[in-house]
Amino acid sequence: MEPGAAGDSRPAKPGPCVSGAALAASGEPGRRMPTVAAVLPAGGCGERMGVGTPKQFCPILERPLISYTLQALERVCWIKDIVVAVTAENMGVMERIVQKYQHTRVSLAEAGVTRHRSIFNGLKALAEDEPGCKLSKPQVVIIHDAVRPFVEEDILLQVALAAEEHGAAGAIRPLVSTVISASADGCLDHSLERATHRASEMPQAFLFDVIYEAYQQCSDYDLEFGTECLQLALKYSDTKAKLVEGSPDLWKVTYKRDLSAAESIIKERISQEICMVMDTKEDTERVGYLLEEVLKKELNNVKIVSGVRSHGGRDIQQITLPQCYNFVCVNGAASDFPETQQLLSVLEQSSLSILYPVVVVLVYFLDFKSVPLGQKMESLMWIREFAKEVKKRNILLCGLLICYPQDEQTLQESLKQGAAIIAALIKDRNPGLIGQLLVA
Amino acid sequence: MEPGAAGDSRPAKPGPCVSGAALAASGEPGRRMPTVAAVLPAGGCGERMGVGTPKQFCPILERPLISYTLQALERVCWIKDIVVAVTAENMGVMERIVQKYQHTRVSLAEAGVTRHRSIFNGLKALAEDEPGCKLSKPQVVIIHDAVRPFVEEDILLQVALAAEEHGAAGAIRPLVSTVISASADGCLDHSLERATHRASEMPQAFLFDVIYEAYQQCSDYDLEFGTECLQLALKYSDTKAKLVEGSPDLWKVTYKRDLSAAESIIKERISQEICMVMDTKEDTERVGYLLEEVLKKELNNVKIVSGVRSHGGRDIQQITLPQCYNFVCVNGAASDFPETQQLLSVLEQSSLSILYPVVVVLVYFLDFKSVPLGQKMESLMWIREFAKEVKKRNILLCGLLICYPQDEQTLQESLKQGAAIIAALIKDRNPGLIGQLLVA
Repeated sequence: MEPGAAGDSRPAKPGPCVSGAALAASGEPGRRMPTVAAVLPAGGCGERMGVGTPKQFCPILERPLISYTLQALERVCWIKDIVVAVTAENMGVMERIVQKYQHTRVSLAEAGVTRHRSIFNGLKALAEDEPGCKLSKPQVVIIHDAVRPFVEEDILLQVALAAEEHGAAGAIRPLVSTVISASADGCLDHSLERATHRASEMPQAFLFDVIYEAYQQCSDYDLEFGTECLQLALKYSDTKAKLVEGSPDLWKVTYKRDLSAAESIIKERISQEICMVMDTKEDTERVGYLLEEVLKKELNNVKIVSGVRSHGGRDIQQITLPQCYNFVCVNGAASDFPETQQLLSVLEQSSLSILYPVVVVLVYFLDFKSVPLGQKMESLMWIREFAKEVKKRNILLCGLLICYPQDEQTLQESLKQGAAIIAALIKDRNPGLIGQLLVA
Repeated sequence: MEPGAAGDSRPAKPGPCVSGAALAASGEPGRRMPTVAAVLPAGGCGERMGVGTPKQFCPILERPLISYTLQALERVCWIKDIVVAVTAENMGVMERIVQKYQHTRVSLAEAGVTRHRSIFNGLKALAEDEPGCKLSKPQVVIIHDAVRPFVEEDILLQVALAAEEHGAAGAIRPLVSTVISASADGCLDHSLERATHRASEMPQAFLFDVIYEAYQQCSDYDLEFGTECLQLALKYSDTKAKLVEGSPDLWKVTYKRDLSAAESIIKERISQEICMVMDTKEDTERVGYLLEEVLKKELNNVKIVSGVRSHGGRDIQQITLPQCYNFVCVNGAASDFPETQQLLSVLEQSSLSILYPVVVVLVYFLDFKSVPLGQKMESLMWIREFAKEVKKRNILLCGLLICYPQDEQTLQESLKQGAAIIAALIKDRNPGLIGQLLVA
C-alpha cells in the first residue's frame, strides 16, 4: 500500500470517536467546525458484481459491507447524522443491519431509481427541518459511497473544510489507466494526457444549500443519466469544487475481486495484535513467555501484549488491548474448563465480537512422555463442543498442544510451529476449523 | 464477477495448449493466423505497491506474479515467442523463475529506464533476425503487462486479429470513476462524459513494422514520459488502433490489495475440483461415498470425481482430473504408511505441484469406541513428519479422522463437519496447518 495508506487505523467499535482533535491536526486549531451530516446512496443493485446480492449488502466476515462503511463514518465525532438511501425492498434488511451492528447515528431514506435521485432523497430528509424530526439541516453535507469502507477521518475533514470554504469539494486520485476517446467506428480518436486528468472519487462535500439547490434545479436528464455531483454544483450553483488528493484506500468495491481485497484488508487489520493471557502457575508462565518471545520473532508485524490471569477472577479486560481480536491463553496442565469458561464469558459480554470474529487459541503445555498425547487429547475433547457454543457469539475457539519439557532445540522448533499455527488461525479466521486440537 | 469473466478457465500446466481451435471460434475459420510474438515490459519498481519487491516479482502462493502471466500467455499455442524486458539487476531472478516454473517460450531482454524504452528493447530483440538467434520477427506483436495475470486467449486473439487488419488494436474497459480535468488552482474545470471515454488496458497488438517504426521515430520525450503505445502508433505510424472491449479480469495488479485479490482468484480457481481416492476395502468405500455425497452437497460449486485405488499399484493418474489440485484419500482403518507414500510419490512425480500447492487430506474412518481416539491419533503421528517432507515438493498434507460407525444422524453431522474442514483446508491452503490431525 502507498505510504500513509491504511494499516495504522484499526477498525473501531461503534460509538466511541477516534479523534476529537481532528481540527487541531488540520492545522487550523482556531477554526470552528461547521455542522456536518453525511448522505450515502445505497440503492444500487450491484450488476457489475455478478452476484445476486447488491454489493453494499455482500458479507465480509459475515457482516454486510455497508456496516463497515457506516462504522468508518461513525468513528468521526463531528459527523452528526448519516442518512442512508435504500430501496423500499431493502429497507427491512437495512434496519436489521443498523440494529445488529449497533449503528447509532443512522437514519434511512428511500432510494430513487438512480444514484442522483437517491442522493436527492437523502438531502430532502436532512432539509425537512420539522419539529419532532430528529434530523436537522447541516451546514455541510458529505456524500459518500456505501461501498468505500476504508475512508479515513483526515480526508473527510479535508473535503468538509474545503466545502465550507469553496462550496464544494471532492476527493481525487491519479488515473491508473490511460483514458482514451473513441471515434464512432470504434477506433482510437485520441488519448488523454494522464498528468492533467484525475479520477473523481468519494467522499465529496458541499455546503448544504449549494448542492440542495443544484438538485432542485437540475433536469430530469441529469437525474437519470448523470453521476457526478461536482458537475451538478458547477452547472446549477456555479460552484467550482476544490479537488483534494485522496489515498488509495478510497477505492470503490466494484467487482467480486474487490470483495476479496476488502476481506484481506479487514482480516489484516484485525490481526495486528495478540493478547496473551498466562496462567499463574509458575512453570506454565515461564514457557508461556518463551512462546511469547517466539511469536514476537515470527510474527514481527504483530503487537503482542501479555498478562497473568489471576484465579480470583481479575477482569481480563485489564490485560487486553481495547481493539484486540486475538487471544492466546496459556494454560497449565491442570487448567480446567471453568477457568476457560470464565475467560470466554468475559469476551462474550464485551461487545468485541459484534463487529469481528474473535480468535481464541487455548494453549496447553504438556509432557507427551508422562501423559500420552492421545490421553491428553481425549481429556480436552470438551473444546470441540464448547467451540460450537461460542461460535454462536462470533468467537472462533481452537486448542493447541505443545510438548513440554523437551530439550531446548526441540522446544524451540515446537514453539515455532505453534507460532505458525496461531498465525494461520488468526490470518484465515476460518470457522471450519473451530474446536480442533492442533499439535505443535 | 461479470458474466463471461474468469472462473471457467482454470490455470493450466506449462506447455500444453488449451486451444488450437481459437481461430475457428473467432468466427473466421478460413483465415490464416499471422505469426505472433509477445513483449512484456517488466522493469517497473513497484513504487505504488508500497512494498520492497517490484510487483511483478511479488509472490502469490509462493510463486512470483509474473510467472502466472507467462503461464497465461504460454497456454496460447499461436504465440511463438515471449520477450520479457527486465532490469539488469533482476536478470538472474527472472532466469531462475523461467527455469523453476518451466516456462519454455520465454526470452529475456534488458529493460530500459521507462516503460516505453523497455518495450522498445523487447521489440529490438525480435527484430534482430540473425542466423543463430532463436527469435524471428513476427508479423504481429502483442504487448502485455507482466502484472495482468488473468488475460484470456479470446482477448489475445481479438487484438491480434484486429492488429493484423488495422495495424494496431488495444483492449479497453468502461471507466469505473468519472474522469475530471483540474484547473491550475486545483479546482474542477470540467468532468468528462463517461459514456464516450474508456480506460485503455492491456493487451494491445500491432503489426510489428507499425509499432517498431513508431518507436524508431518517436522523440526522447515520448520515450521518457509517454505511456500509451496506441498513441505512438497514431502519432508516428498514422495508424488508428481498433478498440476491443475486454472483460474485467484484464485488471492490472497495482496496489497491495490487488495482490490479495489476485491470490483469492487463484485460490478459487484451483479449488474448483476435488479428486477422491477410495481404498478398496468395502466398508471404507461405502462410507467414502457417503462423504462424497456430503461434499457434493456442501460444496456445491466444486466438481468432485472419485475412483478406487487398487492395491496392485494402479496409477492414480487414471483417477485424477488433469488440472486437479485437491485430493481426498479415504483410508480404511488398516491403511498404512506405504500405500499413502505410494500415492504421494505419484503426485510428486507429476508436475502438478510445480505451479500450485496441492492439498492432500488423508481421511480415516474409525470407531472411537472400539479404538480410543487418542490411541488412533498416536498411531497416525507419522503424518506430522511426512507432511514436512512432502511440503518441500509443495504438497500440503493433513489428516482427518471421522468416527464410524455412528448412528445415522450423528454420522451425517460428522460428515458435514468433515466437509467443512476439507473446504477450509482447500480454500485457505495455509502451510501453517500441515501435518495436523483434525477430527470431525
